[in-house]
Amino acid sequence: MSKFQLNILGCGSATSTLRHLPSSQVLNIRDNLFMIDCGEGAQLQMRRMQLKFSRLNNIFISHLHGDHCFGLPGLLSTLALLGKTGTITIHIFQEGADQFRNILSYFCRETPYEIRFNIITPQHKIIYEDDAITVTTVPLLHGIPSVGFIFAEKPKRRHINGEAAKFFNVPIFMMNEIRAGADFTTADGRVIPNSQLTYPADHSISYAYCSDTMYSKRVINYVKGVDWLYHESTFGDDKAANTRKYHHSTARQAAKVAKEADAKHLIIGHFSSRYEDENVLLRQAKEVFPDVIAADEGMKIDLL
Amino acid sequence: MSKFQLNILGCGSATSTLRHLPSSQVLNIRDNLFMIDCGEGAQLQMRRMQLKFSRLNNIFISHLHGDHCFGLPGLLSTLALLGKTGTITIHIFQEGADQFRNILSYFCRETPYEIRFNIITPQHKIIYEDDAITVTTVPLLHGIPSVGFIFAEKPKRRHINGEAAKFFNVPIFMMNEIRAGADFTTADGRVIPNSQLTYPADHSISYAYCSDTMYSKRVINYVKGVDWLYHESTFGDDKAANTRKYHHSTARQAAKVAKEADAKHLIIGHFSSRYEDENVLLRQAKEVFPDVIAADEGMKIDLL
Repeated sequence: MSKFQLNILGCGSATSTLRHLPSSQVLNIRDNLFMIDCGEGAQLQMRRMQLKFSRLNNIFISHLHGDHCFGLPGLLSTLALLGKTGTITIHIFQEGADQFRNILSYFCRETPYEIRFNIITPQHKIIYEDDAITVTTVPLLHGIPSVGFIFAEKPKRRHINGEAAKFFNVPIFMMNEIRAGADFTTADGRVIPNSQLTYPADHSISYAYCSDTMYSKRVINYVKGVDWLYHESTFGDDKAANTRKYHHSTARQAAKVAKEADAKHLIIGHFSSRYEDENVLLRQAKEVFPDVIAADEGMKIDLL
Repeated sequence: MSKFQLNILGCGSATSTLRHLPSSQVLNIRDNLFMIDCGEGAQLQMRRMQLKFSRLNNIFISHLHGDHCFGLPGLLSTLALLGKTGTITIHIFQEGADQFRNILSYFCRETPYEIRFNIITPQHKIIYEDDAITVTTVPLLHGIPSVGFIFAEKPKRRHINGEAAKFFNVPIFMMNEIRAGADFTTADGRVIPNSQLTYPADHSISYAYCSDTMYSKRVINYVKGVDWLYHESTFGDDKAANTRKYHHSTARQAAKVAKEADAKHLIIGHFSSRYEDENVLLRQAKEVFPDVIAADEGMKIDLL
């Protein structure tokens, strides 16, 4: 299995249909699950997609519209019933923490795990960090406070050039430093530059989730050079006028963001219920940016 | 289509699975929809079962466990997005009204329809009445306040015996009274008893929903003579000891309630996720009471 896999749990917009569920995704990074948004039905989708509840420790809520968070109480209750231990951290705006703390204090009083709220703000800021990744918020443009999330692998260590290491007699205990980029000084004082001892590190992957938002130059700056961009595409060209009214984007605008940000790949989602065939949206996006995937429930995309 | 049809939206217990959704049903009584409990995913099930949102005006919540009400915010938001007008009445305990009023005042501020809360109590009491039916609460035994609901058609009018009415010269304007049971006095003062002028009325159907509850003699008294009884059957004989711990019933106990209440038909549901085949539960119930159906998602049962 991929070490960095995106699972689409729901990619519809506010009015759920038989074709699409409300927003939710799970990033599986080396078997650690990171949920992004949690629309109604997210817990069931996790089961369907065989994502293990026990591996979920972080939930990121982009904004406080119901189609992005109404699945939380049910998911958290189920985790309690299943006897999950440890901690679940919910990264959410203050008002969301207040709302869900209230709901949970009534409906889900005793959990065998701890629920922690990490209060986020609509700013460009690292909000999560572990050994492997950082998560950075990106302010979006959506009528109410709303953020995107950039999941970025930290720079990886370089690969040792075995023959060179042997030739220069690099001792084993130095290897970690050299993988991290250090030069090596031989017994007779000669400095061997790191580039002679190592091969370049593997590429560190980055994934940006931007939903819900209007087309925004600021967003483009923030997601510059990202490998994968998920950008909402609620409407097609026919309803471009709706983007200002409802603070959403067209598929064409999503593609424009991907192009102007030099993203490598684009995934479009958050489709309005009015479209019975997203190929319309996909075609419009492709006119601007060729490497596009239309999200769909149950889809697993290997980002690495 | 039947004039009194039960739609099973979800018949699982608290831990939802791929086989069963949390509790929710819709009674379709002459195209008026009455929802009973509203677990997560209920709105989607309504779509799947082609139940019209516009025909839904009453939602009855049996008790305040999440698997019986976490679908409410999503359903009510969707009704708002779809531009529903009129009134939705939610029949619910005071604490539930407080909770959902809070949630809706944040997440669903403006609805084109009115949301009314009818506060119910764990008593035996008529809580709803219209031209055709009454709904009566029945106190259940479940650790927290919990009620069942009896939906009963009002007594129907008798059928006019056309030949007799003609023979006795009953004027048209008298017909309604006679259908309602009145005798008729002829021009020469002779009293014709109603039974000579009419045939008996059609049977008035009754349906009792009892979930969640332990086996209870009181419940049996309340649902005496009901046509259809939906009774929770969380466990099988193998887990009978769990009924006291979790305040639930076995399938056998559900059948005992049906038998002792002289119900005509029994529907079992609210199955624990531990059972992969409800035929085990069905067989155990049938040993006590022969006329049993095991509920299933998507099932439509004509009660009339």
